[in-house]
Amino acid sequence: MTSFSFSLQKTDGGARRGRVTTAHGTFETPAFMATATAATVKAMTVDAVKDTGAEVAICNTYHLMLRPSAERVASLGGLHKFMNWSGPIVTDSGGFQVMSLAGLRKLTEEGVTFRSHVDGSKHELTPERSMEIQCLLDSNITMALDECTPHPATHEVAAESMRRSMRWAQRCRDAFQKREGYGLFGIVQGSTYEALRAESVQALTSIGFDGFGIGGLAVGEGQEEMFRVLDFTMPLVPTDKPRYLMGVGTPSDIVGSVIRGIDMFDCVMPTRAGRTGRGYTHRGTINIKNARHAGDARPIDERCTCPACQNYSRAYLHHLFRCEEILGPMLLTQHNLHYYQMLMKALRAAIEAGAMDAFAAAFAADQAKGDISQ
Amino acid sequence: MTSFSFSLQKTDGGARRGRVTTAHGTFETPAFMATATAATVKAMTVDAVKDTGAEVAICNTYHLMLRPSAERVASLGGLHKFMNWSGPIVTDSGGFQVMSLAGLRKLTEEGVTFRSHVDGSKHELTPERSMEIQCLLDSNITMALDECTPHPATHEVAAESMRRSMRWAQRCRDAFQKREGYGLFGIVQGSTYEALRAESVQALTSIGFDGFGIGGLAVGEGQEEMFRVLDFTMPLVPTDKPRYLMGVGTPSDIVGSVIRGIDMFDCVMPTRAGRTGRGYTHRGTINIKNARHAGDARPIDERCTCPACQNYSRAYLHHLFRCEEILGPMLLTQHNLHYYQMLMKALRAAIEAGAMDAFAAAFAADQAKGDISQ
Repeated sequence: MTSFSFSLQKTDGGARRGRVTTAHGTFETPAFMATATAATVKAMTVDAVKDTGAEVAICNTYHLMLRPSAERVASLGGLHKFMNWSGPIVTDSGGFQVMSLAGLRKLTEEGVTFRSHVDGSKHELTPERSMEIQCLLDSNITMALDECTPHPATHEVAAESMRRSMRWAQRCRDAFQKREGYGLFGIVQGSTYEALRAESVQALTSIGFDGFGIGGLAVGEGQEEMFRVLDFTMPLVPTDKPRYLMGVGTPSDIVGSVIRGIDMFDCVMPTRAGRTGRGYTHRGTINIKNARHAGDARPIDERCTCPACQNYSRAYLHHLFRCEEILGPMLLTQHNLHYYQMLMKALRAAIEAGAMDAFAAAFAADQAKGDISQ
Repeated sequence: MTSFSFSLQKTDGGARRGRVTTAHGTFETPAFMATATAATVKAMTVDAVKDTGAEVAICNTYHLMLRPSAERVASLGGLHKFMNWSGPIVTDSGGFQVMSLAGLRKLTEEGVTFRSHVDGSKHELTPERSMEIQCLLDSNITMALDECTPHPATHEVAAESMRRSMRWAQRCRDAFQKREGYGLFGIVQGSTYEALRAESVQALTSIGFDGFGIGGLAVGEGQEEMFRVLDFTMPLVPTDKPRYLMGVGTPSDIVGSVIRGIDMFDCVMPTRAGRTGRGYTHRGTINIKNARHAGDARPIDERCTCPACQNYSRAYLHHLFRCEEILGPMLLTQHNLHYYQMLMKALRAAIEAGAMDAFAAAFAADQAKGDISQ
């Protein structure tokens, strides 16, 4: 059996180059996880996801507990078999989506009751039930159930919310079923308050986790404020465990967060953008639906080696989106995920070479150029 | 340079085993063409289309003349490059879609004027313009512009319509730009009237074409009537050219039509069904959205070797369709096209083995079984 572990291989300033090992294989960090909310990366086959370079997928407890249900996934052999993804799988706890999607929520010390956004059916999520669900799903990295403190929050609200999350974290730890190669992450809360973030890290460290989620960011506070919170939080977090900045973010967010010591990311941006016509390039984003691309024989990004850029013109992608052809979202999602994975690969190489500063400067300069001219 | 040609390799009763050669490669017959209406097989990558076994694609003149326009496709290097399909491409003439989709149609001896169903813009399609568009698209097999006679039609209407189509066929032949490895097919009309079908075949044979479309069928007349028309029409058609039954059909339609001497087929059924949850199996069709599949760990069809059947349960497909995930239509479309191509492969093997009768009987017996029980 393989133990769940994190090996830190190299640092460059705050940036870290590492590897996470699970019962379903390893992934290199810094890592961007493929977002497979409902046990599928939207508009992508598993082979296409793998081709982008993604090594780890993240699924959503809230969505899967409603459809098809954790018990059904378990009866079909777990998430790896269900969705044909043999690599490591992370699941979030469901707490964030209960707060953002579900109806008629009621939060108590015990947990949260809510109505499904799909059919209005009533459900309860407690720390214990979240652990049970994530175990049934057979997730390699289980996230503790927490409350994602809204932004902005007063110090009083933030403190109360964080301290309940820490009590829930202890209940998660107690309820988590230990298995070789499976890990449990606690989630740091505390809003934008340094003392609360410190208290949260201290609480989680005392309980003992296999990694740390950094929660309550990317909720509207802006990049500058997010970086400020990371600047005072990350030096407090133990260095021997992986750190996962939940729900982040833009390419620029990721570069800045890697510099500040983050190892893992997830975000719906590249897949959602791919379905709405927005493409990432090393010179910033483009909207492929714009008329300027209608006759352009060049690829989305001439530096890109993805199938969309190797085989198709901007004009073809434009045509597909104009005609609402499914292949448009398929190709652009693949390109965007490929762009994100190439970014992570370049970040890992920069850390290995001790060249993070130079990489970050070149990245920012390229992005500032804006799209190629017609 | 490669000449456009058809080689007839084996016959078994009326059924024919052959090969069509074009400037962009060959395809084996009987063939089912991948329907790439707007220069994309809906919900499929080109690699996935090739993996189904498809060797020839068919695109739609009407859709492409409106978006992105034939001139734009030509400026981008033609359809093969535009859509990244290096194999043979067939285009229809646009006549059928003008009649079924466009607004404010006016048909005269000269041609047809209509308004785009997309933006209301006014367009004209004549035999000469249809030839020009299909040349700009760089289609390997150009279809003559005809009028698809509605069903039912009186003898008088059918005769008038067919004779105009024959005058247009002569104009298409005159306007068609001859190129090595490119062919022009005339289209047999005449509704359900034997004498009119015979007159049409005679007219087209006199003009001289590289192949024959059989038009005006699969328009609501039913399988029995369609087979009756084929029974008296096909013996009249020259044997040294490929015969293409336009817009057909169900698996059972295809088996019956191959027996009657058809070499080429196209139909939106497998792709459209794949997007709406209907899957083909050797025991008939299923609706994957039905609750009975929600917990079924078995594949769509245990005889099938497609990626959907090799890697996923009916339960997973059901989940994808229930959640309206794009991967559902992607996988089911791939399965359905794979099913059709496996059928064509089996038909070709049966003709080679002189076993068409036995094959058709076994096919019908399997289909009659109905889906596997729970």
